[in-house]
Parts: sequence; structure tokens; C-alpha cells
Amino acid sequence: MSIDIASLQQRLRAFSAERDWDQFHSPKNLACALSVEAAELLELFQWLNDEQAALAPKDPQFAERLGEEVADVLLYLLRIADVSGLDLNAVVERKLLLNAQKYPAEQARGHARKYDAL
Amino acid sequence: MSIDIASLQQRLRAFSAERDWDQFHSPKNLACALSVEAAELLELFQWLNDEQAALAPKDPQFAERLGEEVADVLLYLLRIADVSGLDLNAVVERKLLLNAQKYPAEQARGHARKYDAL
Amino acid sequence: MSIDIASLQQRLRAFSAERDWDQFHSPKNLACALSVEAAELLELFQWLNDEQAALAPKDPQFAERLGEEVADVLLYLLRIADVSGLDLNAVVERKLLLNAQKYPAEQARGHARKYDAL
Amino acid sequence: MSIDIASLQQRLRAFSAERDWDQFHSPKNLACALSVEAAELLELFQWLNDEQAALAPKDPQFAERLGEEVADVLLYLLRIADVSGLDLNAVVERKLLLNAQKYPAEQARGHARKYDAL
Repeated sequence: MSIDIASLQQRLRAFSAERDWDQFHSPKNLACALSVEAAELLELFQWLNDEQAALAPKDPQFAERLGEEVADVLLYLLRIADVSGLDLNAVVERKLLLNAQKYPAEQARGHARKYDAL
Repeated sequence: MSIDIASLQQRLRAFSAERDWDQFHSPKNLACALSVEAAELLELFQWLNDEQAALAPKDPQFAERLGEEVADVLLYLLRIADVSGLDLNAVVERKLLLNAQKYPAEQARGHARKYDAL
Repeated sequence: MSIDIASLQQRLRAFSAERDWDQFHSPKNLACALSVEAAELLELFQWLNDEQAALAPKDPQFAERLGEEVADVLLYLLRIADVSGLDLNAVVERKLLLNAQKYPAEQARGHARKYDAL
Repeated sequence: MSIDIASLQQRLRAFSAERDWDQFHSPKNLACALSVEAAELLELFQWLNDEQAALAPKDPQFAERLGEEVADVLLYLLRIADVSGLDLNAVVERKLLLNAQKYPAEQARGHARKYDAL
């Protein structure tokens, strides 16, 4: 399964232009909006215990709301990459390489300590 | 440009399994991590004024750090979708439709009021 | 136990003025910083399961880090109230009243549904 | 002006107990809720430019909404301190001392670089 980033970014650009919203979509404002949407996603889980939270996405109504928040985060992220001129595939490949270096499987196995505490 | 979601999710699954990290990657914990990464992205902009923030992504050093945070957010989002069984293309298409209904171009033009204040 | 808000806000004002930081401390920038600090607090708990998270604050080293993040959030909150001209006691009393109206004990007992779903 | 922390924490304890909410108020869940409320505060500013954001708190309707979000953040912070056994005055004094060491006025004047980049 692939996501057609270029096409989505083009649609978001048109959506913003039709509403004269480019004036609001500075990288900083979009970064604020991204944090707000990530928090709305977190809000769905905030009062659930481990067991409830693990089961929640199997509930269709919960999954629908989760899908909306996941989509909001993704759309703002695509927009940030677009207005900032970032190549998403390039930054992801670079980060995966960094993560593999920061968290060697042997040292990182079975615990969640940060790389600088390994 | 496309992102091969299925392949990335498969690589993240392997990365987690090799480190015995599946025990940490519950949807709730990943939602926490997503908020934390979104905040790290926001932190890059927090003290910049509008003009500085608009120019910042043109600076190669800033762009590199921004790329890392954008990648972190995207990777956690892919992981949330994976462990929750969400189809990213489906939730994005559904949300774009909802946004078009909530923000008709005529009523939404030129201001940033929320849909329930249009 | 009381917190002397007026005195703390005065000290934060002096701290900022001595460093010529008032130019950065707009309400919006401080709101960004508050979200960033709240996320740093959350980060301490993100990979802990319910049982571990409940015990964590009893660990002196964890408690020390938690205390730092709690203090950061409180200091930015005091600063936001100061630059925005808000009376913290007044807004807290008003919110406690609203919460009591939104969440009557009888309807809200034993579950965490939002007020608009009671 | 002082805030009577002990009295507020006592009232929050009673509010939670009356609703049988202590089961939800683990430190981790409260940390999630704190991030969510901080994001709601940020949301008020997200689309405003520097000039609009600076003026916004002078608008009575905006100030009222800002006050509600500031109160929510403060109340969750008091609750976190309470369930975690933290002395707010002690952690604040310790953090102010740390900040003075990390950001000497001479080196920090007029810019917003992080302490590790001074």
C-alpha cells in the first residue's frame, strides 16, 4: 500500500488556496496545529487503562474517531513538509538509519531507555 | 511522489520485534510518543517570530533538524495506524471529504474561524 | 501550603528582563513553550505500563526529573498569566464552578465520559 | 497574591472522590490530560500572527477562554503534584536555581539559544 504524497499535497494546496488560507499556513502555525491534533488523538486514550486502550481500536466507533485524528495529523504533516520543501521519503530514510545507529538491537533489547542512557 | 506505507510499516514492525519493543508499542503509548515528537517539532519554532519562522526552513541546519522531527512524527503515526488496523488512505480520503463539508470555500474564505463558528 | 504567585511572577519578570527575553515572551510563544514542557513531562511516562507508571514517582531519581518538568510547566503558566493580565485565583474559581456544573457527581460517577456525552 | 495550593488540592481530591475518578487519575493519565489541556490553550493562538496574538488577551471573550485553559492546566498540574507527592514550592525553587545556572544573564542576553548551545 502506498500513499500518493504528491497528489495529496497538491489537493491540500488547492484547498488552502481556495479559502485564502495560505496566510495562516506558515510552518510555525502548522507546527502548532500538528501538536494540537496530536493531542486530540491522545485525548481519545487519556483515561483508558492499558487493557482498555489496547482493545479500544477494535471498537468501530472508537476506530472512526481515531481515524479522523490520525488523518488530521498526517494532513498537517504533509502540509508542513510541503511549505518547508522537505522530501518525506528522504527524511524518513535518514531517520531510520539514525535510529538503527542510536538503538543497536543488542543494547536496546527489552527496555525503553533513551539512546543516551544505553 | 509516493510513500510506500506497507513497506515502511513492515520495517518498523521488524525494528520493534528485533528489540522486543512490542510490549511498549500499545496504541496509547504510541499516542503519547506522537504528542512528544510533535512537541519536539514545535520546539524548533517556539521562540521565532513570524518572519524568522517563515525563513527558518531555508536554513540547511534547521531543515535537517526539522526533517528529523517530521520523520519521527510520521514513523509513530505509521506505527499507530499499523497496530490499530487503520487504512491510512481510507481515513485520509474520509477526512478530506469531511473538511470540504465543514469548511465550504465561500464561508471559510480569508479567516480561520472553526467550523462551528462559521 | 501556598504559592506566592505575585512574588514568583516578579522574579520571572526580572529574569526575563535581565536577559532581554521579553521580545520572545509573547503569549503565543509562551503557549508553545508550555505545550513543549507538558510533552517533556509526558515523555517521562510514555513507555511505562500502568503499574510502572503508578510506582515511578516513588523513585527519587524519577521524582527529581518529574519535579523539574512540573516546575517548568508551572513557571510558563505563571508567565502566561502575567503577560496576559489574568488573575489565576479568579480563573481557577470560575473553572471549578464550571466543572461542578458540567460534571454532576451523580451522572459522572465511575466513568470518564466527556460532559457532552453525559 | 498567593494561591492556596493545599486547599485547592484538597478540593480536587474531594471532587475526584465524589465521582469515583481516582481510578482514572494515575500520574500517567494526568500527564496525558495536562498535555491535552496545554494543546487546547495553544489552539487559541495557532492561526494568529504575532501582532494578533499579542493583542488577543485584551479581548474579553478571548481572555475568558484563555482563562479557562490556563485554569485547566493549573488544576491538572496541582493534581499531578498531589498524587505524586511533590512539594510545588520546593520544585519551583530548585528549578529557578537551575535556570539561573543554565542561563547566565551575560551569555543568554538577547537570544533564545538553548543552554547547551551557549
